[in-house]
Amino acid sequence: MLSFESDYNNGAHPDVLRYLLETNDEQTPGYGFDRFSECARQKIREACGFPDADIFFLSGGTQTNATVIDGVLQSYEAVISAETGHINVHEATAVEASGHKVIALPSHDGKIAPEELEKFMENFTADENKDHCAQPGMVYITFPTELGTLYSRAELDYIYKVCRRFELPLFVDGARLGYGLMSEECGFDLKWLAAHCDVFYIGGTKVGALCGEAVVFANRKAPKHFFTIVKRHGALMAKGRLIGAQFDALFSDNLYFRISRHAIEMANRLKTIFRNKGYRFVLDSPTNQQFVVLDNTLMERLGNTVLFSRWEPYSDTETVCRFVTSWATRAEDLDALEKCL
Amino acid sequence: MLSFESDYNNGAHPDVLRYLLETNDEQTPGYGFDRFSECARQKIREACGFPDADIFFLSGGTQTNATVIDGVLQSYEAVISAETGHINVHEATAVEASGHKVIALPSHDGKIAPEELEKFMENFTADENKDHCAQPGMVYITFPTELGTLYSRAELDYIYKVCRRFELPLFVDGARLGYGLMSEECGFDLKWLAAHCDVFYIGGTKVGALCGEAVVFANRKAPKHFFTIVKRHGALMAKGRLIGAQFDALFSDNLYFRISRHAIEMANRLKTIFRNKGYRFVLDSPTNQQFVVLDNTLMERLGNTVLFSRWEPYSDTETVCRFVTSWATRAEDLDALEKCL
Amino acid sequence: MLSFESDYNNGAHPDVLRYLLETNDEQTPGYGFDRFSECARQKIREACGFPDADIFFLSGGTQTNATVIDGVLQSYEAVISAETGHINVHEATAVEASGHKVIALPSHDGKIAPEELEKFMENFTADENKDHCAQPGMVYITFPTELGTLYSRAELDYIYKVCRRFELPLFVDGARLGYGLMSEECGFDLKWLAAHCDVFYIGGTKVGALCGEAVVFANRKAPKHFFTIVKRHGALMAKGRLIGAQFDALFSDNLYFRISRHAIEMANRLKTIFRNKGYRFVLDSPTNQQFVVLDNTLMERLGNTVLFSRWEPYSDTETVCRFVTSWATRAEDLDALEKCL
Amino acid sequence: MLSFESDYNNGAHPDVLRYLLETNDEQTPGYGFDRFSECARQKIREACGFPDADIFFLSGGTQTNATVIDGVLQSYEAVISAETGHINVHEATAVEASGHKVIALPSHDGKIAPEELEKFMENFTADENKDHCAQPGMVYITFPTELGTLYSRAELDYIYKVCRRFELPLFVDGARLGYGLMSEECGFDLKWLAAHCDVFYIGGTKVGALCGEAVVFANRKAPKHFFTIVKRHGALMAKGRLIGAQFDALFSDNLYFRISRHAIEMANRLKTIFRNKGYRFVLDSPTNQQFVVLDNTLMERLGNTVLFSRWEPYSDTETVCRFVTSWATRAEDLDALEKCL
Repeated sequence: MLSFESDYNNGAHPDVLRYLLETNDEQTPGYGFDRFSECARQKIREACGFPDADIFFLSGGTQTNATVIDGVLQSYEAVISAETGHINVHEATAVEASGHKVIALPSHDGKIAPEELEKFMENFTADENKDHCAQPGMVYITFPTELGTLYSRAELDYIYKVCRRFELPLFVDGARLGYGLMSEECGFDLKWLAAHCDVFYIGGTKVGALCGEAVVFANRKAPKHFFTIVKRHGALMAKGRLIGAQFDALFSDNLYFRISRHAIEMANRLKTIFRNKGYRFVLDSPTNQQFVVLDNTLMERLGNTVLFSRWEPYSDTETVCRFVTSWATRAEDLDALEKCL
Repeated sequence: MLSFESDYNNGAHPDVLRYLLETNDEQTPGYGFDRFSECARQKIREACGFPDADIFFLSGGTQTNATVIDGVLQSYEAVISAETGHINVHEATAVEASGHKVIALPSHDGKIAPEELEKFMENFTADENKDHCAQPGMVYITFPTELGTLYSRAELDYIYKVCRRFELPLFVDGARLGYGLMSEECGFDLKWLAAHCDVFYIGGTKVGALCGEAVVFANRKAPKHFFTIVKRHGALMAKGRLIGAQFDALFSDNLYFRISRHAIEMANRLKTIFRNKGYRFVLDSPTNQQFVVLDNTLMERLGNTVLFSRWEPYSDTETVCRFVTSWATRAEDLDALEKCL
Repeated sequence: MLSFESDYNNGAHPDVLRYLLETNDEQTPGYGFDRFSECARQKIREACGFPDADIFFLSGGTQTNATVIDGVLQSYEAVISAETGHINVHEATAVEASGHKVIALPSHDGKIAPEELEKFMENFTADENKDHCAQPGMVYITFPTELGTLYSRAELDYIYKVCRRFELPLFVDGARLGYGLMSEECGFDLKWLAAHCDVFYIGGTKVGALCGEAVVFANRKAPKHFFTIVKRHGALMAKGRLIGAQFDALFSDNLYFRISRHAIEMANRLKTIFRNKGYRFVLDSPTNQQFVVLDNTLMERLGNTVLFSRWEPYSDTETVCRFVTSWATRAEDLDALEKCL
Repeated sequence: MLSFESDYNNGAHPDVLRYLLETNDEQTPGYGFDRFSECARQKIREACGFPDADIFFLSGGTQTNATVIDGVLQSYEAVISAETGHINVHEATAVEASGHKVIALPSHDGKIAPEELEKFMENFTADENKDHCAQPGMVYITFPTELGTLYSRAELDYIYKVCRRFELPLFVDGARLGYGLMSEECGFDLKWLAAHCDVFYIGGTKVGALCGEAVVFANRKAPKHFFTIVKRHGALMAKGRLIGAQFDALFSDNLYFRISRHAIEMANRLKTIFRNKGYRFVLDSPTNQQFVVLDNTLMERLGNTVLFSRWEPYSDTETVCRFVTSWATRAEDLDALEKCL
């Protein structure tokens, strides 16, 4: 069945899997001290432009968010997020599990508004009762957002200025980072991003790997004892090589960016197909997630041959549906989709 | 370099990796709802003799321990473990991170004594101040233990009787389960084990997989909303197929047990080699971990050609060293070790 | 200095203090097993109309909220509250400290709308991804609210119907309960309230006591091991008699209700004074907290002789100010305030 | 009935209660910003010899332990305690509730041995796997201990040296501090103690107050945002004056030390009575808790007229019983006890 359901429906990119196969017989130390992980770290450091960056490999997005946030925050501190942020909506209270509140700011197509963040912090700082309140301790944004949108260079720059003014580390959830950076509408590259936040992660699970996210502390060092914090969160892989080797492959010959770019091209074609047939989008997403308004009757019929997500009701007779491309989407999949419509 | 350092130094068993390769192009739903995971569950249910068992795949041991314990316990409850239990020693407070105390009982070569467990619970129940104390909520044992030892059939039977008397679920950490069940000294099989505890897991990371543990709730159902609990712990893999497919392969053609048996045979040869050369063992381990007393001078010299763990000081001039075999150990590795000694 | 700053600026009501004095020399068991606590429990059970109610005495509001919520919820469950709810705003993440998320619904003058609660739960129940989300586990409301408003009989009835439909225990924070029940606008009495929620507390700290809140599980039994849960939260007083005796006094001769009624009368006079002088209120509060719009110049001048809270900016030149009466407010305080205006 | 059951069976010392009465009508700010709390802080600073000490008033012992430990530790850090330490035994996992492990060292009549603490830390520091372990983050001792014993000047000095060597803050639980300092066997005074630990508390609940403990950060400043941490733990009293005023009274005219001394004199007489009658003590306690071996038949008979605690079985026919004196014990109580024996 044709699937545009998510970007984690496939296995790994063939080059990634091949590398696992090639290196399988080699014996290595555990817990990320293997040579593949070290090699991947070096390549990522170079790609980020921070030769001393602290880099850790974790297995999935929710785990990474929970571990980084808990590691950076003091026990009594809270994380600021858009109301639609993944940590606020779809992580089953993984952040609260470590005792931290998520302070939700309004979502503008998945993004927080820099001005609103600034205003919130100014109000908080001026509040006579602030010592009775959750103490904002970091800012969390997603890039791309859960709705496929991107922060512009000016927006991210503004957000990071606010963060530094109020001494709030900025954390960028890059579960789909490649799909953001390789969009035509992205106003910056990985190096610029690394210089405009305090910690971010490079998503592997959704961009070619079987599993794995690379956490990068570039502008600031990792929290003291972060290795132990990772272990405490159950996030330390005994065979750390599994993730290390995959990122080693992904950051060889520009693979990560090439396959991300492919997904964007597929998304562009998908947009054209829908647009040409007169469908509306609920928002203008420049990345691999597209949100199309479908008439419910059509939606049911299409659902017989194509997999996609029913996102939310749009009207009594229409539904917002999400179509996702990935590194694995083929041109012929789009041809087939076009025929189905 | 020759390595007997651990059972997670290699990649995956070739049959496991081959299966990942074969199935890589197939598109599947995420989060464990794929057909490989379902197939693996069916095979494991059959192997356990519990056709209705609830089965979940998690990525690593510490994560599995923390998630199962937190899922089974009420917030104010504690888990009873041997003092040497992995959760009490080497998991960086992953259990306490969810608010649970580990109540440590004395370790007898890695095991708790059933009589001592019974006595502890009798005393606790009789204690007038018990409402001011940590409430025992489950019992955790490892099989094999961290020291390679095994509970006998009588011991496990006794422990489970005590558990049922005091309404304490019994949880068996089987990170090295195969190496326990396939030891000549093991007095029972997987079916008997499944019937004599409430929840256990079948270790994959140390027995042929790249990562992954299979949690089995056989005698009792999984806690309500366990899926959400797994997610909250950051332990839900988006590409659940990665673990599902590996267990599918491991439970085909008896692979899991065949490769476990191989590791035991290698361990038996390793024991013979050391014993023939006059070395002492600090305890009699019937499984794949062997604890040998080495003179410090020899230890340093041997360390130049062979990897192994320095476990703990034995005397001023001697050290307990751990040598581990696995599914990946080759007969020629043992020949080489023999020469080095 | 004249103070309308809060309802916890005074010591205890003289009758309460006198009772502490009279009973001081008596020796009693600790932890709430004393005869004063037992006597208070009996009187409260009678006042509530639930002869078997489970009753616990805790020392303060935040502590009580955190303990009750954590005691009732499963680890992975969240509590629903108005956005302005005390637990969501002014408790420094005491709820999140136990791992629970606060799900914030819109606040309508401090209240949640029953229809919105119902809609939220209907949407949640229908959400295909709900297992990845915070699981609603209880509903928290304040009575009176933080803004002095009251739920009508119809509203509370509706909310409780929704709660039962979705199996959500309803918890009523009654830190100022007396001031709510004794308002002319309150459509029910203590017995009716006790029958229309699952757990509530009767605030003592703000209504005549030095400290102490009485938690009442009327319609349902207290969670198993609630005594231990209280201890674990550091909320178990060694000298439980301190709170027990105070509630014993407060529930003798109707004292709790008489002094609450007095505060309402004082609030009514305060309203008249402000209204007669042409001041506006931002909302119509029928209880002891009044929110008046003051011109900033006047506010500063008045602040020299009267204590009150600056609540929030109203416009560039005006501020919402909170004036609070209590059991301790005297008629002459109002005379003095009138002169100051 | 004659009671030697505990030191929290009475109300407050008459002078303390009188002061509450005298100051009752005064209006004060909440949360510890009242003048009584400030006055008490000044007096305690002077008594400790640290004019800049940070001082906080909390309501009870378990709460204070949990709040201080959580405030000082990083999330992944553990607290070292004697196996018999109150936090390890009788606090219903209040420390674990905030995610922290209690590392238990052997108890020698309630005390940890400085040499064993040093050895533990040396071993930990040398452990190659230490990053996988609970990270020791502070040391907790009780003074007097749960068994009434006292650390000598040399012992405490040694412990503090070890603490500084390994950068572990030292926390002294002084729930019964007065009874320790006023014992003839105590080798130091409050000033010396304050200079030989990092944070300690002065117990009020068991020494003359209705409730309340004074936390003193003398040698080091309080953790950043400790006020918020206290609130988050539900430990911030709205009417902070209740505890402030009591400590104000207790630290006037040396009251705290005079009434502590009285309890010690009563304990000395109690020891003489038992000793003269030929009873044995299980250990030599120089403070207000005495542990006597009673024949079970006598114990039952004595239990008809005297309240005391059954501590633990001593032999098949004998039980260790605890007799406690306090500031409230009267000479005639001891006369009466003597007659009963």
